[in-house]
Amino acid sequence: MVLILNGKRLSQELAEELKAKIVLINHMENRPKLAIVMVGDDAASEIYVRNKLVYAKQVGILTELIKLNKNASQSEIFDTVTELNGNDTIHGIIIQSPLPDQSYQDLLFDRVNADKDVDGFSAINIGKLCNGQRDCFVSCTPLGILTLLERNNISLAGQHVVILGRSRIVGRPLSILLSQKFENCNATVTLCHSGSKNLTDIAKTADVLITAIGKPKFVSKEMVKEGAVLVDVGITKAKDNIHANGYKLYGDIDFDDVYCKCSAITPVPGGVGPMTVAMLMQNTFQAYTKLAANA
Amino acid sequence: MVLILNGKRLSQELAEELKAKIVLINHMENRPKLAIVMVGDDAASEIYVRNKLVYAKQVGILTELIKLNKNASQSEIFDTVTELNGNDTIHGIIIQSPLPDQSYQDLLFDRVNADKDVDGFSAINIGKLCNGQRDCFVSCTPLGILTLLERNNISLAGQHVVILGRSRIVGRPLSILLSQKFENCNATVTLCHSGSKNLTDIAKTADVLITAIGKPKFVSKEMVKEGAVLVDVGITKAKDNIHANGYKLYGDIDFDDVYCKCSAITPVPGGVGPMTVAMLMQNTFQAYTKLAANA
Repeated sequence: MVLILNGKRLSQELAEELKAKIVLINHMENRPKLAIVMVGDDAASEIYVRNKLVYAKQVGILTELIKLNKNASQSEIFDTVTELNGNDTIHGIIIQSPLPDQSYQDLLFDRVNADKDVDGFSAINIGKLCNGQRDCFVSCTPLGILTLLERNNISLAGQHVVILGRSRIVGRPLSILLSQKFENCNATVTLCHSGSKNLTDIAKTADVLITAIGKPKFVSKEMVKEGAVLVDVGITKAKDNIHANGYKLYGDIDFDDVYCKCSAITPVPGGVGPMTVAMLMQNTFQAYTKLAANA
Repeated sequence: MVLILNGKRLSQELAEELKAKIVLINHMENRPKLAIVMVGDDAASEIYVRNKLVYAKQVGILTELIKLNKNASQSEIFDTVTELNGNDTIHGIIIQSPLPDQSYQDLLFDRVNADKDVDGFSAINIGKLCNGQRDCFVSCTPLGILTLLERNNISLAGQHVVILGRSRIVGRPLSILLSQKFENCNATVTLCHSGSKNLTDIAKTADVLITAIGKPKFVSKEMVKEGAVLVDVGITKAKDNIHANGYKLYGDIDFDDVYCKCSAITPVPGGVGPMTVAMLMQNTFQAYTKLAANA
């Protein structure tokens, strides 16, 4: 019996839990508020941002979407962030990536005040996570994966987790989080990437295999150990003549091929994606709570 | 033929290279200067600090050793660091660990100005390393290991590196550094720890096995793949009736047992230890160069 790790359903359960907390806030004029800075009009980003706005509304988090022209100057973008840093009614700030010009992405992420950096992308937040300091924001996708496993009673302690993909947004922080001596973590973690040799051999040793590479159906059953837990972060849109909207979404894992071999698996869509949004709102609420306590 | 990775010899070669650069500095009144803050009188720390002072003198880096009483208050220690941060004649600052009270270690490391944090322990420096930002200080032991391998023409690209021990000073930053897409890095890295299951099986898959756990002779030939490169960071002092000084130093690896199975190995002592000191002085010179450029 294969367990389907249903992130869509869990994200809705978490929405109800968060909503119940937010509804208790008396001061309606100072509810948790998330600012989303978007530069340009990347089509995928539009969808991601819409999902965030819908979920925020559902749980009672206020939002402010700041859309800058794709030709906005670097200083204009930086000034926007600086202003949001100083705005007391804003508790969380995210920069929707990708940026049209990625050359200053690191600097921009670091510009976000660490206490409002609810994506956890700034050097100071990821550095604190490395050092095992708990007073940091953990990136939403890693945190979403951990929560999804946790709520499905899948323990990582001592288990061998193999991660394919070392992006700064998913693979890298995930590898750091899961190998920390935190509750439900404490895994042995292997971080693989496009330059890794013997990838199949390494993947096959994984108790938990997590893919975040963006290569449709890359993982077949030859790469999977019998009984492994599979988590698929990849999501690629491919043209398709069968589906009504003209395309289909594919994960990094060949779902049908591996299904009989694994013990649990995330679907794509409906697995990790909705968990990322849920964690963003949890982080925003955490930022609000902390900032309110210090006010 | 087993290659002995002689860190002692390499650290001396690097000392000559660094000395040749420092001697070119005309302004003798503003030579690179390292401040070492030491709290209490830990016996091992005394030896480490002495080694640093000797090497600094050899290469022409000035030093200031600030010894605080083991009962020094937290605020006294923090004020010392703040003062050093503001002192323009100091280019690098390190806090010799362990501290008598480790409860505020993280905060203290973070107090060191990132531009003077030549141990690379602050959240901001380790966070930048995570994010692949090059303008950071990399911790000295990880950097020393990388340099030792590099200068011995051992390439890590695509290789499977297994690290035993996830300390914030060695194992953790090393795992991050070696898996970055930097020159001579780009390895597949597995980070293991005391809670890891099937440690022997995992260690045996390593092309490069690095130990930093402080358990004498923990690694025997059963844990080593034929032809592996072995790097031993552990150093434990054990009483001994044979040696004149009454003790012997042991690494984490059972040198005699694994010798015939590996292709290269670091001795203990004389392997990684001297490289750590050499990298500290390289980092200090780097801090000096950067601070001088901005002055």
